[in-house]
Amino acid sequence: MAILPIRRIAVIGTGTVGASWTALFLAHDLTVLAWDPAPEAATRLREQLRQTLPILRELGLKGEGELHMATTPEVAVQTADFIQENAPETLDLKVSLLGRLDAASSAQALIASSTSALRLSEINTACQHHPERVIVAHPFNPPHLIPLVELTGAPAARQRAAVFYRQLGKYPVCLQREMTGHIANRLSSALWREALYLLQEGVASVADIDAALSQGPGLRWAFLGPFITYHLGGGEGGIEHYLEHLGESQVRRWANLGEPRWDEDLKQRIREGVAAASHRDIAALAAERDRQLLQLLALKNKA
Amino acid sequence: MAILPIRRIAVIGTGTVGASWTALFLAHDLTVLAWDPAPEAATRLREQLRQTLPILRELGLKGEGELHMATTPEVAVQTADFIQENAPETLDLKVSLLGRLDAASSAQALIASSTSALRLSEINTACQHHPERVIVAHPFNPPHLIPLVELTGAPAARQRAAVFYRQLGKYPVCLQREMTGHIANRLSSALWREALYLLQEGVASVADIDAALSQGPGLRWAFLGPFITYHLGGGEGGIEHYLEHLGESQVRRWANLGEPRWDEDLKQRIREGVAAASHRDIAALAAERDRQLLQLLALKNKA
Repeated sequence: MAILPIRRIAVIGTGTVGASWTALFLAHDLTVLAWDPAPEAATRLREQLRQTLPILRELGLKGEGELHMATTPEVAVQTADFIQENAPETLDLKVSLLGRLDAASSAQALIASSTSALRLSEINTACQHHPERVIVAHPFNPPHLIPLVELTGAPAARQRAAVFYRQLGKYPVCLQREMTGHIANRLSSALWREALYLLQEGVASVADIDAALSQGPGLRWAFLGPFITYHLGGGEGGIEHYLEHLGESQVRRWANLGEPRWDEDLKQRIREGVAAASHRDIAALAAERDRQLLQLLALKNKA
Repeated sequence: MAILPIRRIAVIGTGTVGASWTALFLAHDLTVLAWDPAPEAATRLREQLRQTLPILRELGLKGEGELHMATTPEVAVQTADFIQENAPETLDLKVSLLGRLDAASSAQALIASSTSALRLSEINTACQHHPERVIVAHPFNPPHLIPLVELTGAPAARQRAAVFYRQLGKYPVCLQREMTGHIANRLSSALWREALYLLQEGVASVADIDAALSQGPGLRWAFLGPFITYHLGGGEGGIEHYLEHLGESQVRRWANLGEPRWDEDLKQRIREGVAAASHRDIAALAAERDRQLLQLLALKNKA
């Protein structure tokens, strides 16, 4: 069966994540059929597009795809080649919604859920028609800028989705088997758990722990993952030297890592620390983050 | 007591870390008195300086401090204002060496150990003369490029060292109390433990786990630490919203994080994965990392 090019995308749910996907699709000249049950959804979506489309234009993405608001999810997906679902992370809601999308869409259309907290096998249980084309495609915030998309699902569907996302400049990573939290959020959680432990133990302030990352290993991780980082940490002998000489000391360090108690005192330290560390309002911080990401991506793309 | 400006630096141990410190000091027009017991040390040091000084020149650090090789650690520190110790991470060796440096140096000189694995209270036990000016100042590899320096020790000495390092363009972070592994290596270890668990469980390849970091959260962490990242992850409500609505789900995720078994099969997967993921030799990879870091630092300094 020949696979038709993907031209019409249904975006189901247009909150922060759905709106960010919409911007990316439009900037690639794709047609977007959007649906969201909130009464103000269309207004909020256009407002967010006014902010994000100029950022994508700076990245060279100057397409001007058409945006249509659909009155039901069924109308949105009926003529779609690709469906990106971004509903709230509530199991029952996702299950029933994905079931409806599966029933109402063409068998050739891929259905990709942006879920971060749920696993594919939990949310595809009401997909009776063509469950094999339902996958998880988890983006990373903000999805119009961060390349990573984590994919789980049947290999054929995963591969078709990977090709599509790559055409949009994304970096798809395929999980060989599903795992709650996928990869990147699990790595982030592990790091944050230790950060909270250090805060709780009074080792350093919120601002100083943040700086220890962003002025330290965070700089390397913008280019290299942990494995290649330790490969380079082994000097001329590379990972072999590292495993031989420093592997055991890492294992000993794991035993020494902390488990923070999630209590009111810790939450209060986080609140106060974040207030002390962030002098600017959230919108300004987010705008600055996006500007910095844009420059970093331009730098990486040049390499 | 007036504090004299720091002009003469003793670098004790000129392996990778010591040589990197030496480059930074020389590029700031400081005089370096270096000592290392290895017979080829002077040759190796000059070779490494030939590679690193041009990189620092690109960062605008064009100083040409004088380098002298000393025949004993005592000679090196005798006239030094600041002493950076970079001996191997062997407890007995560090203890006895720091004792000698303390005995042979001026009471006004700060003594900073680059130790990554040991704590100050373990290594300063033979410092009988002026232990209050002995601190830990742990740099991050490569120390001529990564700004972070983690400091522990008496507040007065820590503060003087912080002022000095800041003048060199470093980003000192003071620990309020000592902790094995300080901050950044503990955060890195926590993340790597989870990365190894995902590899062991067959969730993804080495290359894909690395990409999930460097194409995802690693991009944000080049600018923002974990706390501000979650502050922005809370949308308009910031960290308060995050704690309220997503805090508990993080705690549940911690229970689900993994503990890899450190066995031969895992080491073999790491070796094979790194070999498959790194197409270039280590020197070329390290040179590329340095070039990218340089550009990223220029981008951050511009901001």
